[in-house]
Amino acid sequence: MPSSAILCPPGFLDRLEAFSQLGSTGDGGVDRVEASMANGEARRALARRMDELGYQVRIDPVGNMFGLMPLAEQFAGQELPWVFAGSHIDSQPKGGRLDGAYGVIAAVEAGAALKERLRGRPVAANLAVVAWTGEEGARFQPSVLGSSVHAGLLPAETALARKDGNGVSLAQALDAIGFRGTDHAPKPAAYVELHVECADALEKSGRRLGVFDRWWGAHKIELMFIGATAHTGPTPMAERKDALLAAAEVITGLRRLADAAPPGTLHTSVGRLEVLPNSPNVVPDRAKLFMEIRSVDPDVMADAHARLMGLIPHAAAIARVAHRIVREEIRPPGAFAPSLRSLAREQAAALDVEPLGLDTIAAHDAVPMAIVCPAVVLAVPSRDGLCHSPREWTEPADLELGAAWLGAVLERLVTEGPQHG
Amino acid sequence: MPSSAILCPPGFLDRLEAFSQLGSTGDGGVDRVEASMANGEARRALARRMDELGYQVRIDPVGNMFGLMPLAEQFAGQELPWVFAGSHIDSQPKGGRLDGAYGVIAAVEAGAALKERLRGRPVAANLAVVAWTGEEGARFQPSVLGSSVHAGLLPAETALARKDGNGVSLAQALDAIGFRGTDHAPKPAAYVELHVECADALEKSGRRLGVFDRWWGAHKIELMFIGATAHTGPTPMAERKDALLAAAEVITGLRRLADAAPPGTLHTSVGRLEVLPNSPNVVPDRAKLFMEIRSVDPDVMADAHARLMGLIPHAAAIARVAHRIVREEIRPPGAFAPSLRSLAREQAAALDVEPLGLDTIAAHDAVPMAIVCPAVVLAVPSRDGLCHSPREWTEPADLELGAAWLGAVLERLVTEGPQHG
Repeated sequence: MPSSAILCPPGFLDRLEAFSQLGSTGDGGVDRVEASMANGEARRALARRMDELGYQVRIDPVGNMFGLMPLAEQFAGQELPWVFAGSHIDSQPKGGRLDGAYGVIAAVEAGAALKERLRGRPVAANLAVVAWTGEEGARFQPSVLGSSVHAGLLPAETALARKDGNGVSLAQALDAIGFRGTDHAPKPAAYVELHVECADALEKSGRRLGVFDRWWGAHKIELMFIGATAHTGPTPMAERKDALLAAAEVITGLRRLADAAPPGTLHTSVGRLEVLPNSPNVVPDRAKLFMEIRSVDPDVMADAHARLMGLIPHAAAIARVAHRIVREEIRPPGAFAPSLRSLAREQAAALDVEPLGLDTIAAHDAVPMAIVCPAVVLAVPSRDGLCHSPREWTEPADLELGAAWLGAVLERLVTEGPQHG
Repeated sequence: MPSSAILCPPGFLDRLEAFSQLGSTGDGGVDRVEASMANGEARRALARRMDELGYQVRIDPVGNMFGLMPLAEQFAGQELPWVFAGSHIDSQPKGGRLDGAYGVIAAVEAGAALKERLRGRPVAANLAVVAWTGEEGARFQPSVLGSSVHAGLLPAETALARKDGNGVSLAQALDAIGFRGTDHAPKPAAYVELHVECADALEKSGRRLGVFDRWWGAHKIELMFIGATAHTGPTPMAERKDALLAAAEVITGLRRLADAAPPGTLHTSVGRLEVLPNSPNVVPDRAKLFMEIRSVDPDVMADAHARLMGLIPHAAAIARVAHRIVREEIRPPGAFAPSLRSLAREQAAALDVEPLGLDTIAAHDAVPMAIVCPAVVLAVPSRDGLCHSPREWTEPADLELGAAWLGAVLERLVTEGPQHG
């Protein structure tokens, strides 16, 4: 047990601010979409910093970046397990500076500070920090791509073959920035992720720290409507096969499903819509929707999905078009490891803070990790609950508190062993 | 009056077929979007053919291509007026091979054949053939761009400054293909356009030829919804400002206006929708709709517009977004010159065909021309009424009949003078 409160690593806020300049959009936000030039720049800066702090930098075949900090060779005659801490540095096209990057920079700095604190003390685990590839799913779907590969939930070949909207594969995009690696990395025995909340429960409650107890499930569906191009002028209304009309019927219908449910139980969305040929005076023959159904309750998800599946043929009939489900991805709801959640609460108490128990609705890399090892997400407030926006904001003192908390949790895991989690 | 029926110019179908290979999409259609590389290739082929047939090729500042065929110096001591025939060779991105190109190739070939027939006979007008820039409005709005400039309805500078979806201006695009000219071209004293019907009235009636008596009006509106980006997962439904949702409400609502009107009296559409940032897990903060309201009745247009203006704030309120009309363009309905319509009917009778009187709902270059001189559109059938589709089709015998008819109409106008029209 740590005898005194652990502090935020010195210079942490300055380092975070400097990192926010990489891919800056000039309005407080960043555009570091996975394997973009700006993302490559941020990756190189991260690798330099890891190296400077004594981490062994490893890049795996899907571009996950690991910083290994071996603390001891063996413990009680055994190979030491690895405690992981990290998050991601890719962003949305109009993303914020904290979503992901906060957790990575905090892990890197807190890990190095921990190594200093530990000098001479026995340890039960080694430490690895990590920045996962393609968490956002903005360019390559599915989201939480790199962590899913490392968790063994998705073959690396499948991830590398995923293509962006321009037909560029992840493999090609990583090659273009020089981050398709060949290194092997150890598997985690525990995983801790520090993240901004991306919701407003902490802000509303006035609490400064939160522990994610459960994650919402997400059912993501790519749907294509197939009509026929025709002139928007003369073509009789009754003869049109309008793929965009069908898409609009589904967008409004899917929204109504969420509006009809009790608040906070079901979230639905269409974030991306591809229309072809997308010419002002041509009836569109193709419309591809990227839809989401999210809930913490599997029955609510299944019910919403069944209703959506009823909406789609109805919309297709109205618009006289065909339809096809192009891709589906289901992430069931679940709970993070109780032991790690307790440990996080204990270490918050050591900082004189009582954390709020939260659900995470957004995906985090901790979700695929939680399938293979104890995992937890530590959260700090998001002003107005905003993420995926240049207006993301967390009070600097809370950013520092979160980094200190992460350091304290990692110290317990490294000194007492991840089986504690 | 011609003593015997005029024939289709020899080799016409082969020339049309060869022209269809320029910008071919491999499925029977073409992609010759204005000032694209394929459009430039088609323009060069057209200029070569005009030159070969003895036309003087002129390119004006907005890229309109004229082929001047002076038939005599003067008539009765006066400068001779110019009879124009033409259409356009730009296409939709997934366009058909006949829409536009048919009328241009027919004018060029029929004009040259007419010159041969006229040798030694007195004429009352000179002949010009023309391929207008940017009729389709697929890349640069408004549509019928080049003919509107030549008719004096739109300043050339305004047209040249119009930008495509990538921010490229018409001036830049024409420079890139070498078709921003400096030539002056005469003004028309009469304008005849041969075109496929782009509707199915001829096919349904079993007639082979049609005369466009009236044109429908069109009210085109570009509407922007402005919301706020946010994560599609955690953001509470009630707090989202979803620009795409507002767009979907308008798309379905605008369609319902047309569905509620008697068939064939009101056409509405949204052909293009731009969504930003268009990432699967980000609530869209921008959605720009390209909407159309069309009718032959000004009151129906005005009523539909008023209802649409009522829909928009309602949709904005549902989605918690702002809205702004970005651009509006109104083309009132109207009628083509009665004298030219009669002349066209007489010449059809000389070919033993009774043409059907039609409305044109699609814009044609003849509409801006009709504001400044007598104008008419001669039509041949479109199978299934399809235009703006690779499936455009007209029976070869009907294509030949139309070209012969155009030649006969031009002969009357050139020998008797455009005041006949």
